[in-house]
Amino acid sequence: MEPRNIFLNISPIDHRYSVSESALFEQLTEYISEEASIKACAAAEIALVKAHLAVRGRSDAALEAKLDSAAENIDPAAVYAEEEKTRHNIRALVNVLKTLVPAEAAPLVHLGATSVDILDTALSLRVRGCVKDVILPILRELELELCRLAESEAETPEVGRTHGQHAVPITFGFAMSEYVSRLGKSILEIQRLAGNLRGKLAGAVGAYNAASMIVRDPEALERKYLGFLGLEPSEHSTQLVEPEYLLRLLLEINAAFGIIANLADDLRNLQRSEIGEVQEYFSAAQVGSSTMPQKRNPWNSEHVKSLWKAFSPRIISFYMDQISEHQRDLTNSASQRFVADYLAGFTLAAGRMKSVVSGLTPDRERMAENLSQAGGKVKGGVLAEPAYILLAEAGVSDGHEVIRTITLEAEQKSLSFYEALKSKPDVFAKITGQLEKLGIPDPAAFFAHPERYRGIAAEKAVSLARKYRNLMATV
Amino acid sequence: MEPRNIFLNISPIDHRYSVSESALFEQLTEYISEEASIKACAAAEIALVKAHLAVRGRSDAALEAKLDSAAENIDPAAVYAEEEKTRHNIRALVNVLKTLVPAEAAPLVHLGATSVDILDTALSLRVRGCVKDVILPILRELELELCRLAESEAETPEVGRTHGQHAVPITFGFAMSEYVSRLGKSILEIQRLAGNLRGKLAGAVGAYNAASMIVRDPEALERKYLGFLGLEPSEHSTQLVEPEYLLRLLLEINAAFGIIANLADDLRNLQRSEIGEVQEYFSAAQVGSSTMPQKRNPWNSEHVKSLWKAFSPRIISFYMDQISEHQRDLTNSASQRFVADYLAGFTLAAGRMKSVVSGLTPDRERMAENLSQAGGKVKGGVLAEPAYILLAEAGVSDGHEVIRTITLEAEQKSLSFYEALKSKPDVFAKITGQLEKLGIPDPAAFFAHPERYRGIAAEKAVSLARKYRNLMATV
Amino acid sequence: MEPRNIFLNISPIDHRYSVSESALFEQLTEYISEEASIKACAAAEIALVKAHLAVRGRSDAALEAKLDSAAENIDPAAVYAEEEKTRHNIRALVNVLKTLVPAEAAPLVHLGATSVDILDTALSLRVRGCVKDVILPILRELELELCRLAESEAETPEVGRTHGQHAVPITFGFAMSEYVSRLGKSILEIQRLAGNLRGKLAGAVGAYNAASMIVRDPEALERKYLGFLGLEPSEHSTQLVEPEYLLRLLLEINAAFGIIANLADDLRNLQRSEIGEVQEYFSAAQVGSSTMPQKRNPWNSEHVKSLWKAFSPRIISFYMDQISEHQRDLTNSASQRFVADYLAGFTLAAGRMKSVVSGLTPDRERMAENLSQAGGKVKGGVLAEPAYILLAEAGVSDGHEVIRTITLEAEQKSLSFYEALKSKPDVFAKITGQLEKLGIPDPAAFFAHPERYRGIAAEKAVSLARKYRNLMATV
Amino acid sequence: MEPRNIFLNISPIDHRYSVSESALFEQLTEYISEEASIKACAAAEIALVKAHLAVRGRSDAALEAKLDSAAENIDPAAVYAEEEKTRHNIRALVNVLKTLVPAEAAPLVHLGATSVDILDTALSLRVRGCVKDVILPILRELELELCRLAESEAETPEVGRTHGQHAVPITFGFAMSEYVSRLGKSILEIQRLAGNLRGKLAGAVGAYNAASMIVRDPEALERKYLGFLGLEPSEHSTQLVEPEYLLRLLLEINAAFGIIANLADDLRNLQRSEIGEVQEYFSAAQVGSSTMPQKRNPWNSEHVKSLWKAFSPRIISFYMDQISEHQRDLTNSASQRFVADYLAGFTLAAGRMKSVVSGLTPDRERMAENLSQAGGKVKGGVLAEPAYILLAEAGVSDGHEVIRTITLEAEQKSLSFYEALKSKPDVFAKITGQLEKLGIPDPAAFFAHPERYRGIAAEKAVSLARKYRNLMATV
Repeated sequence: MEPRNIFLNISPIDHRYSVSESALFEQLTEYISEEASIKACAAAEIALVKAHLAVRGRSDAALEAKLDSAAENIDPAAVYAEEEKTRHNIRALVNVLKTLVPAEAAPLVHLGATSVDILDTALSLRVRGCVKDVILPILRELELELCRLAESEAETPEVGRTHGQHAVPITFGFAMSEYVSRLGKSILEIQRLAGNLRGKLAGAVGAYNAASMIVRDPEALERKYLGFLGLEPSEHSTQLVEPEYLLRLLLEINAAFGIIANLADDLRNLQRSEIGEVQEYFSAAQVGSSTMPQKRNPWNSEHVKSLWKAFSPRIISFYMDQISEHQRDLTNSASQRFVADYLAGFTLAAGRMKSVVSGLTPDRERMAENLSQAGGKVKGGVLAEPAYILLAEAGVSDGHEVIRTITLEAEQKSLSFYEALKSKPDVFAKITGQLEKLGIPDPAAFFAHPERYRGIAAEKAVSLARKYRNLMATV
Repeated sequence: MEPRNIFLNISPIDHRYSVSESALFEQLTEYISEEASIKACAAAEIALVKAHLAVRGRSDAALEAKLDSAAENIDPAAVYAEEEKTRHNIRALVNVLKTLVPAEAAPLVHLGATSVDILDTALSLRVRGCVKDVILPILRELELELCRLAESEAETPEVGRTHGQHAVPITFGFAMSEYVSRLGKSILEIQRLAGNLRGKLAGAVGAYNAASMIVRDPEALERKYLGFLGLEPSEHSTQLVEPEYLLRLLLEINAAFGIIANLADDLRNLQRSEIGEVQEYFSAAQVGSSTMPQKRNPWNSEHVKSLWKAFSPRIISFYMDQISEHQRDLTNSASQRFVADYLAGFTLAAGRMKSVVSGLTPDRERMAENLSQAGGKVKGGVLAEPAYILLAEAGVSDGHEVIRTITLEAEQKSLSFYEALKSKPDVFAKITGQLEKLGIPDPAAFFAHPERYRGIAAEKAVSLARKYRNLMATV
Repeated sequence: MEPRNIFLNISPIDHRYSVSESALFEQLTEYISEEASIKACAAAEIALVKAHLAVRGRSDAALEAKLDSAAENIDPAAVYAEEEKTRHNIRALVNVLKTLVPAEAAPLVHLGATSVDILDTALSLRVRGCVKDVILPILRELELELCRLAESEAETPEVGRTHGQHAVPITFGFAMSEYVSRLGKSILEIQRLAGNLRGKLAGAVGAYNAASMIVRDPEALERKYLGFLGLEPSEHSTQLVEPEYLLRLLLEINAAFGIIANLADDLRNLQRSEIGEVQEYFSAAQVGSSTMPQKRNPWNSEHVKSLWKAFSPRIISFYMDQISEHQRDLTNSASQRFVADYLAGFTLAAGRMKSVVSGLTPDRERMAENLSQAGGKVKGGVLAEPAYILLAEAGVSDGHEVIRTITLEAEQKSLSFYEALKSKPDVFAKITGQLEKLGIPDPAAFFAHPERYRGIAAEKAVSLARKYRNLMATV
Repeated sequence: MEPRNIFLNISPIDHRYSVSESALFEQLTEYISEEASIKACAAAEIALVKAHLAVRGRSDAALEAKLDSAAENIDPAAVYAEEEKTRHNIRALVNVLKTLVPAEAAPLVHLGATSVDILDTALSLRVRGCVKDVILPILRELELELCRLAESEAETPEVGRTHGQHAVPITFGFAMSEYVSRLGKSILEIQRLAGNLRGKLAGAVGAYNAASMIVRDPEALERKYLGFLGLEPSEHSTQLVEPEYLLRLLLEINAAFGIIANLADDLRNLQRSEIGEVQEYFSAAQVGSSTMPQKRNPWNSEHVKSLWKAFSPRIISFYMDQISEHQRDLTNSASQRFVADYLAGFTLAAGRMKSVVSGLTPDRERMAENLSQAGGKVKGGVLAEPAYILLAEAGVSDGHEVIRTITLEAEQKSLSFYEALKSKPDVFAKITGQLEKLGIPDPAAFFAHPERYRGIAAEKAVSLARKYRNLMATV
């Protein structure tokens, strides 16, 4: 088969993104390209041969080496050429493989197996490899970048926003630590679930019919076979491995996708002209808009969100593939092939998000400026909330009304909230006394600094960053 | 850019199906590959240059020919190389194109346009072409095959099934005419909607800001530009064409997908071992199962259903892409690229279904046998229903009870329902009299032939086949 | 059956929203409650009786009146009580109905019909009624409010935003006219498709088996039956009406849902603290936040978006319901019941959006202020784009560079772009000359007014508003 | 608020299914009705009061009892009436609650909390309760019924089916044990995830701003508050609990839904007229079809599949609700309310499936008959596969050809495969010798009994049934 100009490909994964994300694409091809798929099937077939040799007491290191090399050197084009004749992909592979292995092993190729014993096992192998060697590393890098930001910006004041409205202060590191926590847990789940993918050698209907004509304990043969691949058997099989092992992994990856998309939306919005609190990396030569040179569009964050829109709904297909009639119908076959696209789409989004976060510039001045606008018409008005809570805690039953009056006065006299508050010494004393009790340092100056009304934002950011940086060492 | 081994592609569309459905794949690449995309953008850019020439009274056939040839000869690899620098795909295209067009036209390239004026217009162009030249022809072929079956099998008796249970008789042609009717209407809708895709030249925010600095009537310039491409303008634009023009087309294609999937399910089930009423074409060399040689799996129908599972839920992405903030955000950009995958997936399913239907062998004997089993323990028992209706119509108020008694007698005496009925001359006379009134030929023999209780199944099959065969001449 | 405390209901539609949107809820119950469903089935049964009378030449106005009244007075509780016995809802209805109609008509009740002849017909009846009498009126009101805003704010300057970044000017009316155009077309489509819902009387497998035992022309009987209900027959039937008639209506309603959700997102974002260009109506007594009294959350727009998230993906269920094996399986039965929920969810969102738009306060000052910030560090810098286009059009080949230099100078000298431009009389003259050619009034002052660089925004807003206000008269 | 006729409800859950599944509906209302929701919020508010008392050293059993009773006696109608005024549901609840608690506790109600501290905590409480007390019990019952069938039918021969085609033998118990294994694991996961739902008291933006004005260690106050409800805190909060705790539970419930739907499809198909291997319970009075009395439709299995179609795609809404801008937007509010509908839909399906399985009648004769038809034209032909495997294992290199010849001979001479095989004593001896080696009892008779070629189907069925019956004791 002739190589093909990549621009004749249809899927953006195979043209546009294979160029723009070539390193990631190459890593992916090692696991989820068609070549990788055929090689994984060959590896499974060879594991079966080795298992047969083992249960017959014929294990032999030199022979095994030759077998492994047959699997590694299988030529996809040759398999496809053979499939032209057989119209059956695994039969084609078997035919080709028999010509590559030492003659003594040829009769053992595919012996006692049904096609899906190979296909489902190879799928688990490939997906596990892709997750462990491509997806988890990129997610770990992203997580570590988030940890870095959470820590370095743990003390950077920023206004918290709910409903798109200014609420009360947080820190930018705290905002990032949300994703440290959410993504961190998802990474650990993905790792766990990828480690729980399964294989099978239970035959055409899952009852080990054929294998039970070959060995006394067909489940032992299955374990031996899968052991060569580092897999465990599906607890029950029909012709298929139980679909939920893979499904749960995909569901969790889609949850991680949602977390990343949420981060993308947050960053998109923080880059609005009117907000301007962060900026994506923007190379010097880059064209923002062909006609509006001032624009610096958050296009990487937009891209991530867009990939989420393209891929996230595909989870429905994976749920649909749970249903296979009786001992199996084939309606999960073509659909399951597109798990590869899904994994690629997710990986591209994760990779892009990693670039965004590692190149992100927080604009601390703009954050401070926006925070200073929060709370309405009175400078520092965002501190009316803590003032009335503290007053109430100090036993003033109409504390809310007292503070409201002070706020109005501040507005009328164009004072800051801090100045207006200080002008009522008894109220101010009660409030600062309360702050003292809480162990808040320098209570007298608290109301001059809206950014100090941040609860435990900074501490939380730091502790989450530390926790997950440590956990990432295990991924 | 080097050509690449296709087995290194990730999407099954670009490896497996590009081989197994190579003719269809090649047709698709003319419209929805990356090369096609770049060429369509170049065609749009050139249309804009021609529009500028026209409104300036500088139209010139020789120049236009050179321009057209520039568009056709654009090299995707060159555009990609340029994009490496600009990080902006349309700016890259423009730079390359300026080197290809006659110098006098260069300043007019992209003049007054924003990237999306080109991109959205080119997308409409490509999708329209793909639908008209690839999708509609394959659907029309499928529809004509269905018409053929509906007509040729219009008289073939088959038991109707509801809830998977034998109900009352139909004909196999009637069953096929369901799809003639449903798919036929969908084809006509697809044609209509593909003809209503739109372009734009309304600029960065849709208000024709830049164009209104160039010409007095920017909408006239837009019409001129789109006129060269056979498109009409979006009624309103932001930076984007209104999303619903394309959305509605995709929704209807997905409806056609559902119809085809329903047909696939019907055919899958008719091929069950216990039913066996139809058979997919199965080549001599084909391997059914590596271990169970007797099996003839309905794998093509299964394949179609599987593609439906893989692609149908993607419609959610298209709905999501309706939402773009204010004058546009970029979150529809990557996702929209995957419309190409969707169209390919649908086309592959339609093509496969066409092969299934054209190679389908109905087993009339098996249909007759299954029909003869319908209606329970009494041969011909399926005719108890018309017997009691006819008796009631003849004015016998307890007709249902009369017939029930006759059925029981038939069972006890091991008679067929027809024999038992004839043994009650008065009842039989009333019933046949009623049949006569209805103009049913040979009424006395009606109850010897369950297959005659088929209503207007045959007539309906024939009339629908005729209607849609004629309509297909207009597609 | 005892009435029940509504707080014991599970679906928010039946508790929370039945209270908060009680008027709309009551309108909906007339079509899509269970009572409405039973009444519609009764109406269909009675139409069948009337059709039987008509084809027998026994039509009789007095009898028909009694029949109609039987349908209207059917008691859902009685039907449910009967269903306890029969375990079949239509059989239960028929039994009850037979006791309510004049004795002479009783034998004609349900004669020749299968349950779905009634159920599918009644469903079309109810959905059509709900769309025509509830959904279209609320959408029309929303559309007219949008037309009002588009016109009244046609001249209100606002900065256009792409990627969340300031781009070039539009008007607020223009922004609203996007929705006039998109929603307007969708309303017309919904009207068309609701008018094309179908019924059937084709019996258990769609071949008119039973009916053909009663009349010579069963299709004429079907037309007569449906004629009493203002419906036309499904072109082909199995036990079911072709699913695409209803599907297409639901797909278009979901498209309208997406349009409304897009509007909701636009309005949410325009209400951000930092943007503040519009404000939802907020009653005096309303609590914004229990602890942050300054907040005015865009909660109605958020609510609409949230309903879209809850209901829009259900479209997948409707696509799934296209598939029914052979002459039908029952797997669309329960799922189709939830079409009622979907219609309610959409209607609630449309109603809420109507309130938002009718109570919306645009803040023209804030819009003007935000526009004045657009274009970077130089006041009026957003006009650099038209300046260089005009200069280029005037034949200055390095126009872009000329303008760039002027912009830099403006920045250094703290001039406005207009002042800097005027300080170069030759450049200024060329540019204003070009504006004159374009027929732009008062060209000399153009660059003092960024809001004048708005293309045809205002004209487009007005013309779309007029067009669709007129079209709404036909809905 | 007046009680309402249930037939005026719109959602089928609140009318049809509240009648047909009244016991289940009542159980659900205790957790997911609006009344339950208000009571759960009240319980959370009271837990907060108790936490405040505790950290102030004012805990007092008598007072706590009065507080608990206030929460339990809250009247939803009163809260709704108050909400009419406040337009804010939690503020309304707080106002009502303050009038119900002892005066000394009133100032502590809602102190330091934001609405979502209550709402998200109450949601976790309700969902956990619904899962533990309603969903898990019904799933456990279903699982135990499946275990029962797997064991009692462990030895019942049945033909295995792949692609709807007869493959090789299994047992019916083995087929059921597939669901024992898949559903069993899902139940354990649901239990685990329901136990991991979280609450919060982290305030308006998640940084514990307000609480840090009240106590030195706001996280300790949060733990105290949640401790009263048996919940742990979200690891990080914005205004919201991290969405993935609930999401993962819903994803797993949807996986269980898919497993149940797969079972439904299997049973639907086994009930086809032509297959007839199982039968749903069918009450004596039940009407199968109004016109076709012989029919016994698998309508319960169809119903389950239909509910899956209606509810399964809603998982997309739950994924969408992962995204909330910055410290929260409100777009998850309305959508999250419909989690209640989803849980109800799933519970109804699980309950129905439990009825189906507990009332299922396997038709062992029909299974035996169908198995005897498997394998093509020769009686016992399904045993050709093991024959050739055994011969190959016995060292006969052309075993496949030898057996093929014997099969042809059997067909020509109208022998059974067993008879034909016995007529070749040397072949037969080799094969039976091999069977003996494998420890298969009575090897000479093996080929007279196709059902004995079942691998370890029976053993697997029994061991899975035992394993999961034991595990269910822990649920």
